[in-house]
Order: sequence, then structure tokens, then C-alpha cells
Amino acid sequence: MSQQADLIISGSYLLPGSHQQDLITDAAVAITGDTITAIGSSAQIKSDFSATRTLHTEHGLIMPGLINTHTHAPMALFRGLADDLPLMTWLEEHIFPVESKWTPHMIFQATQLSLAEMIRSGTTSFCDTYLFSKEVARATEESGMRAWIGEVLYDFPSPCYGELENGFAYVDDLFAHYREHPLITVTADPHSVYTCSKELLSRLGTVARDYNSLYVIHLSENQAELDTCQERYGCTPVQHLEQLELLGANTLAAHCVMLNDEEIALMAERGASVAHCMESNMKLASGTAPVTQMLAAGVQVGIGTDGAASNNDVDMFAEMDSVAKIHKVANMDPTAMNAEQTLHAATLGGAATLQAQKQIGSLAVGKKADIIVLDMNQPHLTPLYNVPSHLVYAARGADVVHSVINGKCVMENRELLTLDEDRLLTEIRTMGETLMEHGKD
Amino acid sequence: MSQQADLIISGSYLLPGSHQQDLITDAAVAITGDTITAIGSSAQIKSDFSATRTLHTEHGLIMPGLINTHTHAPMALFRGLADDLPLMTWLEEHIFPVESKWTPHMIFQATQLSLAEMIRSGTTSFCDTYLFSKEVARATEESGMRAWIGEVLYDFPSPCYGELENGFAYVDDLFAHYREHPLITVTADPHSVYTCSKELLSRLGTVARDYNSLYVIHLSENQAELDTCQERYGCTPVQHLEQLELLGANTLAAHCVMLNDEEIALMAERGASVAHCMESNMKLASGTAPVTQMLAAGVQVGIGTDGAASNNDVDMFAEMDSVAKIHKVANMDPTAMNAEQTLHAATLGGAATLQAQKQIGSLAVGKKADIIVLDMNQPHLTPLYNVPSHLVYAARGADVVHSVINGKCVMENRELLTLDEDRLLTEIRTMGETLMEHGKD
Repeated sequence: MSQQADLIISGSYLLPGSHQQDLITDAAVAITGDTITAIGSSAQIKSDFSATRTLHTEHGLIMPGLINTHTHAPMALFRGLADDLPLMTWLEEHIFPVESKWTPHMIFQATQLSLAEMIRSGTTSFCDTYLFSKEVARATEESGMRAWIGEVLYDFPSPCYGELENGFAYVDDLFAHYREHPLITVTADPHSVYTCSKELLSRLGTVARDYNSLYVIHLSENQAELDTCQERYGCTPVQHLEQLELLGANTLAAHCVMLNDEEIALMAERGASVAHCMESNMKLASGTAPVTQMLAAGVQVGIGTDGAASNNDVDMFAEMDSVAKIHKVANMDPTAMNAEQTLHAATLGGAATLQAQKQIGSLAVGKKADIIVLDMNQPHLTPLYNVPSHLVYAARGADVVHSVINGKCVMENRELLTLDEDRLLTEIRTMGETLMEHGKD
Repeated sequence: MSQQADLIISGSYLLPGSHQQDLITDAAVAITGDTITAIGSSAQIKSDFSATRTLHTEHGLIMPGLINTHTHAPMALFRGLADDLPLMTWLEEHIFPVESKWTPHMIFQATQLSLAEMIRSGTTSFCDTYLFSKEVARATEESGMRAWIGEVLYDFPSPCYGELENGFAYVDDLFAHYREHPLITVTADPHSVYTCSKELLSRLGTVARDYNSLYVIHLSENQAELDTCQERYGCTPVQHLEQLELLGANTLAAHCVMLNDEEIALMAERGASVAHCMESNMKLASGTAPVTQMLAAGVQVGIGTDGAASNNDVDMFAEMDSVAKIHKVANMDPTAMNAEQTLHAATLGGAATLQAQKQIGSLAVGKKADIIVLDMNQPHLTPLYNVPSHLVYAARGADVVHSVINGKCVMENRELLTLDEDRLLTEIRTMGETLMEHGKD
């Protein structure tokens, strides 16, 4: 009669996906190994299973972990270093100079800083594209988070691998090392159409095909990118990728602020996905991506925070709030981008952009156990009429109390279990002071 | 040599206003009674003063409490009841029906719910305009918060006072009761130009003059208001108030989404102030108020959350983040509405809209002790290069650990000292369930 589970998580509410109608009260989920083995009423689960461990939260809401589809984790070290500046001033006078100072050790620590913030604010999976990605991956491995990680390649030398040719070897190493890893998936990451030659874009397309990986690229982020592409190739960035036969179901395009209706239709036809980074697009004054039009056309849309230097946080609850609100005012339609659509984009929709919707993004028997629990016994979440509404418009990262990734508890009662947070913050403070000192040179 | 203080608050950082250049490290503030008596280095303050009580926070940031210039506190009970709907559907099918069920007891409890959220998220003063304001004021008095409170008057009968004529008696009572109160200031509150006759608008103008009070009104919130005013009076809402000689230094106009350049110039000339409610304007798809233009013209601008039913939170840190970001993308200028400007609007700028800039809004000797302390020893706030940037773009309400209002500690280590939060949340949950049951009738 009684089956064995490794962990039973129970609470007052369980939302398996993004629909209020699927809400279960007094609910529980049973986990064996890395997998969800049962979901139901707390009474039923506790009668069917005996568990090695139980984790109960009175007034707790059990839900799928959030999926951040576009990050540059190590940039957490640069948060607030320079803000409110024109893009090129920000990049050339502030970001590029400090990026030249990166060491592998700094990247490892700065990634852990971002991992700590992500776990605390309810993210269980992220897609990262940056430099020194072996260190990003190593830090992520230690944290127990699930991630898609790629090394950014572009035409000029990199602080990580030097000349471009070394970059391909670096990427090959990365793919070889993580081939069988349960949590880390490697991606092929050209930076953008304006920093990568046709040859580089195509060669990474071949890499993606060879390794059956995602092809992650910044695409149509702002007017300057459009102008450069038009001048250089006589077409838009999307058309450029299409002409190179690089727009496919494995394409995950970050930003896509400047798409027109034809390009949206083309993205949908090719099955290409979008990582929508609204707060970064607002802060850098890039524009408002036509997300409601993308969704109407059938384009798969996930939500991303972008790096903490251009947001300035990686809190996906805050990001959902911004996404749901700005498309209402952008379309002058209060029904646009409703709470359930927005929550879907941050969970199962995000999983689909990573081609992982069968594994993660919702709570279902057979899926991986990537689960967060929120404390709903708080003034800003009481009373509770509609869970998706609260999650999108009222909840914040700090409401998350537990996080389980791939069946393993990485945060319990707001305490991080896989990262030494005190030591990390002390080391990061010193690193920040050193960067500031260098800045004065 | 040693002076006596009632309370010394110390921490790693103290920001007296909104400018990074004024930051003091290892700082302290001495408080006697309701007043700040000294600010300086921790060593200096501790050598100059002996204190009855000390409150030290390692990695703590001491700063002025935030000022929320437009709220409808009791509407916290309706948060998430209905969202993502056209304005008139939302109002007529969801909000008006539940508003008809208000009792004084419900208003008192729902106000305390909002007070709990405001204190937790760093607000120390707010300006509230709603129904049953005697109950709003009574709940606020118990909490120890500072507030400007008015009873909304409009042409039709009110669930609170019934026929309009009773409303004036209600307002007179309110003014009489709080004449000498140290924390509660009463205001004269016509709802709007589209719900109040010329006579009502003018008569409340007289009330405001008689009591030397603020005149708080919703103004130019959306296109529908403009259309109605144009049809009825052949002018815009701002012109309508101007013709009635109701636009003055005591006018606090909420929203002001639809102002043109001439109206902005007129507001500046008259010294009228604006409560900018960006998240509500986004969620209801009202539009984007021309705030950068208002500031350039010299209009005093504060920040407001509006009610929790149309936001859906009263977290001023989240609101600052939205305000700073949306005006960048609305103006396509990443330098627009920078962190210091935004922080100013949420502190001293907000105080000025309430004509209280000499008493509150910054930390200075002789000012009232309205002070919050944030825990900066967290991943999303480390390292710390620029305090205004972190406060606007990365901090959230949950980062606030202590709150002192008028010299009295209302929250310590995230525990509310003036409100019985557990009892309150239990009662509010029951109230919410009752509302939902009625909704099914």
C-alpha cells in the first residue's frame, strides 16, 4: 500500500502550472530521486507514500521554479557600477574596462553571487551567455542549479580565450565536459549579427547542429543594431539569420525588440524562440518588444532578466510584474499580457524556449522536481483570491522560502544550502572595492 | 559633554537625502523625542550622546522613510479580486459591488492590512483618499504612521456618509478631530472633475482654504476623463480647475497622465503638485504621464502606488524601479529619470507635494525622525558602488529591517511593533472568504 518517496513537500496551496483553475488546496507533491512521482491532496499523498523527508509550509504555495531565459550571471559584480548613461558611454567607459579585469576566480565568485540571488528569488533554471563559461558552469554545478550555458563568441579577441580560433576549442571542451551532465546543458552562442561575421554565425550554426544544441544570440535589440545590419547587409537582423539558414527551432533569440509583423510570422514559421528582457530594454531605452503580437502569432516567448548590470536585479517575480504591466500601457489595453500568460512565459513557456518543456516548467508526474514554495502568510499576499494574479502583480523574490532543484533542496527557510553566502558576500565586497580602486586609476 | 538622546540608530551607511555624494559611512543618527538631534559618524555621535536605546545594524543603510503620495489603503482587501479587465468592467462588475459591502469595521481592518505592508516595505508617510476616512485615520493612529487623510466626496451618495450634504459634516468632524494631531493631517478631497459638479469642487476649495489644507483630486488620469470634461465643459480637466480658481500650491493632483505642455507650465506657475502613479497607470492602460517634462518645468512630483487593487502592491521600492525605467523607454533616453531624481521624488519631492518638506523627506537636524534601515548584506545589494542606484533599481520592500516614525520604532528586525499581524491576517482571510462567497450570489 505505502510507496516510498525521498521527499514530500506539502502546503496550503499547489499551482501545477499557470492556471488558477488547476489550483489544489491542502496539497502535496512526492519526489523520488530527481523526479515528481505524485501530486494531490496532502491527505492522499501522505496515505499513499511514506517519505524519508517531509517539508511542510502552513500558508505555503507550492509551484514550479521560475525559468530565466537570458542572463549574464557574472555581471552581478557590476550592478550599480554605472547607470542612467547612453549605451555606448556605459559600455565603452564603464563595462568594457572592468570586463578586461576578469579572472577565472572572479567569474566563479561573481557567478555564485548571481546564483545566490536567483535561488533566493525563486529561479531554478537559467540560460546564461557570457565569457569564461567554464567557470560559470563550474560555479553553477556546485550550486545545484539547472542551467543552459554558452561561451559568447565574436569577431574580436575575448578576455577569456583570446583569438577567435581558440574560442571554438573552448566551446568543444565545454560540450565534451558536460555531455552527460544532469543539470548543465551547453549551448552555441554567437554574440549578435553586428559583432559576428557571416562565417562565425554559420560556423556556430554547424556547432549547434553537431551537438544538437540551442543556438543562443542577441537579436534586434535596438535601432542601432538595425541600422548597422541594414548598412552592412542591406537587411534586418532576422532576415540576415534567415538568409544564413540559422533561424530554426533551436534558435533562442534574446530581446527581439524591433521585430515587424513579417519577422514575427517568420520566427513563428521557423519555430524560433524569444527571450523577452523587458526591464533591461526599459533601462537601456531600447524599446518595447511586440510580445503580444509574438504570442498571437505562435512564437514561443520566455522571460529573461538580462545581466544584473542592466536591470539591476535577476528577480523573475519583479520581471513578471513589469512584463504584465508594460504591454498593457504599450497596447493601451488593460487585458493585454494577463497574469496567466505572464506566469506561463516565466515557467512552461520559458521551458519551451529551451526545448525542455517535457522535463521542467510545470509540476507533473514524471517531470523533474524543480519546485519552489512561497510564504503566502504576509500582508501583501493576503487575502488570496487568485494565485497567478498574486504571483505576477504582488509577490517578490523574497517571498520564496524553499527551493528544490532536480529533487535536491538548495534553499530551506530562506537559508541557502549549497552556497556559503556569508563567505561569498565578504569576498564579493573586497572584489568590489578593488574594482572601484582600479576605476580611480 | 555628553548630551542625552532617546535613541541612537547606527549602521554601515547613512544617506541623508537622494545624493550619493552625501553618503556617510559608519554613521549614526541621534533622536530626542520626535526629532533628529544629530547626524554624523558613529564614533562622533557615540562620543557626544548617551542614549536610552541604541539600534545598530551591521551592513545597515539608514535613510529617510519613503513617502507614498497617493493611496486608497482599504482597497488592499480587493487586491487580486479581479485583474486584466477593461476599466469600466473592473469598476462596475467587481469593485463597486464589493465597495457596497464595506462596514466601518472592515475598513479599519483593511486599512491596517495596508499599513502593515507599507511599514514592512519602508513607507513612513502616505496620503490617502477614500471612503470611511474616520476609520482609515483611526487605524493609522494606532499604527503610528504619519498620514494625510481625506474623505472622498462626489455628486452621488456614498457608502460612508450617504447624501452629499452629510459628507461635508463628516469632513468637518474629521478636521475638528485631528486639528492638533502630531501625525494625522486632514485634507479636502473631491474625487475628480468628472464625478464632482463645479459647485462641489468649489465648495471643497473653500473647505481647504478655511482649514488651510491640501486639496487632493484625481486629475487627467486617462482619455475617457478628457473626453467627458471636453464634452461637459469644453475644456481639459486642468483648465476646468484653473477656471474655478482651484489650481494652487495646496493642490495635489493624482495621475496627471494626459497633461500637455501648456498645462504643465500652468501647473508649475500655480505651484500645484503631482502624485505620479506609474504602476497603476500601466496596469489600467491609462498612459504614461509626462514626468520628465513636469520636472523640467519645475512641477513638484511625488510618487504614489495608488490602491493595491490597481497596482497590486504598495511597495514604494518597486514603484521607484518602475518609474525610473519606464520614462527611459517612453523618452527613448537612458539618462531620463535617473536614480537620484527618482529617489528624490519618493522622499523629499513627495514631502514637498504635501507641503511638509521642512518636517520630513530627508534626514537633517531638527526634522522629524522618520527613518528606515535596510539590510545591505544580501546578494542583490552586494557589492555597493552607488546607494541611490541600489535603492531604485535593486532593493525591494523586504530589505527594510527597521522603521522609526516620529521618533518611535514601529518595526524592528522585520517585526511589526504597533500592529498585531497574526491576528490581522487571520481576520483578513475570513473577510476575503466572505467577500468571495457574496461574489457567488
